[in-house]
Amino acid sequence: MGAETGSVGDSADRFSGDPAFAVHEGGKLVVRPTRAIGSIEDLALTYTPGVARVSSAIAAEPALARRFTWAPRVVAVVSDGTAVLGLGDIGPAAALPVMEGKACLFSEFAGLSSVPVVLSTTDVDRIVETVVAIAPSFGGINLEDISAPRCFEIEDRLRERLDIPVMHDDQHGTAIVVLAALRNAARVTGRGLGDLRVVVAGAGAAGIACTKMLLGAGVGDVAVADSRGVLHAGREDLTPVKRWVVEHTNGTGYAGTMTGAMEGADVYLGLSGGSVPESAVASMAPGAIVFSLANPTPEVDPEVAARYAAVVATGRSDLPNQINNVLAFPGVFRGAIDAGATAITEEMKLAAAEAIAGVVGDDLAPGYVVPSPLDRRVAPAVAEAVAACVTR
Amino acid sequence: MGAETGSVGDSADRFSGDPAFAVHEGGKLVVRPTRAIGSIEDLALTYTPGVARVSSAIAAEPALARRFTWAPRVVAVVSDGTAVLGLGDIGPAAALPVMEGKACLFSEFAGLSSVPVVLSTTDVDRIVETVVAIAPSFGGINLEDISAPRCFEIEDRLRERLDIPVMHDDQHGTAIVVLAALRNAARVTGRGLGDLRVVVAGAGAAGIACTKMLLGAGVGDVAVADSRGVLHAGREDLTPVKRWVVEHTNGTGYAGTMTGAMEGADVYLGLSGGSVPESAVASMAPGAIVFSLANPTPEVDPEVAARYAAVVATGRSDLPNQINNVLAFPGVFRGAIDAGATAITEEMKLAAAEAIAGVVGDDLAPGYVVPSPLDRRVAPAVAEAVAACVTR
Repeated sequence: MGAETGSVGDSADRFSGDPAFAVHEGGKLVVRPTRAIGSIEDLALTYTPGVARVSSAIAAEPALARRFTWAPRVVAVVSDGTAVLGLGDIGPAAALPVMEGKACLFSEFAGLSSVPVVLSTTDVDRIVETVVAIAPSFGGINLEDISAPRCFEIEDRLRERLDIPVMHDDQHGTAIVVLAALRNAARVTGRGLGDLRVVVAGAGAAGIACTKMLLGAGVGDVAVADSRGVLHAGREDLTPVKRWVVEHTNGTGYAGTMTGAMEGADVYLGLSGGSVPESAVASMAPGAIVFSLANPTPEVDPEVAARYAAVVATGRSDLPNQINNVLAFPGVFRGAIDAGATAITEEMKLAAAEAIAGVVGDDLAPGYVVPSPLDRRVAPAVAEAVAACVTR
Repeated sequence: MGAETGSVGDSADRFSGDPAFAVHEGGKLVVRPTRAIGSIEDLALTYTPGVARVSSAIAAEPALARRFTWAPRVVAVVSDGTAVLGLGDIGPAAALPVMEGKACLFSEFAGLSSVPVVLSTTDVDRIVETVVAIAPSFGGINLEDISAPRCFEIEDRLRERLDIPVMHDDQHGTAIVVLAALRNAARVTGRGLGDLRVVVAGAGAAGIACTKMLLGAGVGDVAVADSRGVLHAGREDLTPVKRWVVEHTNGTGYAGTMTGAMEGADVYLGLSGGSVPESAVASMAPGAIVFSLANPTPEVDPEVAARYAAVVATGRSDLPNQINNVLAFPGVFRGAIDAGATAITEEMKLAAAEAIAGVVGDDLAPGYVVPSPLDRRVAPAVAEAVAACVTR
């Protein structure tokens, strides 16, 4: 054993108090053959010479790859480690446990194989070229934990270059689940999406995607705030993406703070971290909806939120209404792959949100606007709804 | 279902007569979590929030990635599909079944996970950059079925850039098994490696690597032939690699044909395809050794070879003495990874060959100079020998 290994082994005890480390010992994934190789005949069919007949057939008729290779059923979870959970730019090796976890969830909830691909580069051009180069190995690309605004360009360029589904989950997975929860929150408080005035706190990957999705679903009024306040046309520090937001939100041109915008608002959607004062929550419209998704510490203390809001959701598994991307991405990719889709469309994302909301059904209650992340009905329902969007 | 899928499904019957297609239905690999996710607690440890503690620990102490991620135990099988088996340049999708087969063998014989990575580019620079970019995801890189002379440059550059084991199996896997077989063939015919005069037919990836390995092991005299005859200093069409060969082989400067060189030679090593006339085999030294590895049709007809040679080996599973790379690569990577090696060295390859030869032991016979590809003793023996080479 090398010195490095030795030192890691020697310090084993440090981690014995935290079960998270036990779960990660040796990694969380394994690749296995689907059929045993127990005889010379097995070997001659799985590998040479039998495999040559399959390769020849695919070379002559490329569509056969969909049937006789695993690629169409494998999703690459691609990250450069620049925006990992709330930890920031921790690099590819440290990001890997998150990507392995994601791959576990693809398997567990959608029966898809998934391979973490963490990158030694953070250069946008190199990331795009790398993913394009390895794309024939996979049936879908789940981009993960890539910092804004780079994530927007990387996703756009890959969608243009590739004919397999590409989705940046921090954007669209979050947006799908938020919309699902908001649909049900509006329903349980007797409102329509068109009646809602929403304040989105955070103009990163998730904030932008949620804003687009809410607008696409017909939410009446949205204002988006970053750390300097609400985005409006008078701001001179706008990135192209934020300029798009200004053109499509905040119709009144409100130029104040995020907490100021909360006055009279129906919905607060926190995607930013930080903390919101109680007075701002108190100033919201009656029967307000508070989605406070920072993890592990929500922007609005859940107990404070409960004093004023009719519906409260967080990202935490120990509280009701957990907004968890696992409700979306396994079913979205499963449905897109099953249907042979070449992209994930807006229509598919809206259909996924409706499907998630639909699983709640008649059990709807202020404390139950989204299904549990472990609800096995969700991924199949999402997959079916997404697949149905593909033109036949 | 899209039109493409429909047409593939409709034509299912075409393939029902060949069991190789049944084995490939849906692909040959699957990725699974190592631990079930059955509860909210499991989810909170495998994914957020528990995973954040593991990622933070690795960010602070990168060596912990070896223990708490799967990467160190995953080998990428990388190909651009330019030299697939005897099929040539069939592209990434058609190459995938071969890479999946290789990944099955890594799992089956070495207990390693392995992921096929087939590339949409054949450009040397792009291949190198791509593999460097994805390298943090893996513990080793097995290059496969990349055409010569590009394979030499790609391997050299990746070995220089990466600190994980990189090996082009078509070169070194073949060379290791050939040397193992030759050691035992020499032993069973009562000769030493230094006594042997060897003709290598083929100056592609395998031919060059076998030549280097035989020289490294102390084989007395080697002549290498390509389609234009034996490589010698007078040839004006030499690539840099062939120039290296000329400088290290064919000491007498023989400038004739391959069959001419076979006169009086002790060993014929066929890695080229084509066919060798009976008269050339008859002209070899008494007790000759014929390794004729083209698949499915050996260069020397095995029945013809048996008339003249003391030991005959082929690449075929239905004949004795099958030279199969699966005897080498699983154990080589397993040993290198177990020992935390940052490269596969010449010493490790020589040790692997000795270990393979050693498994034959006292059962040595002209029809048994290498173990069966299914012999489960081989990979552990190779892994141990390779790991022992790593400086402690």
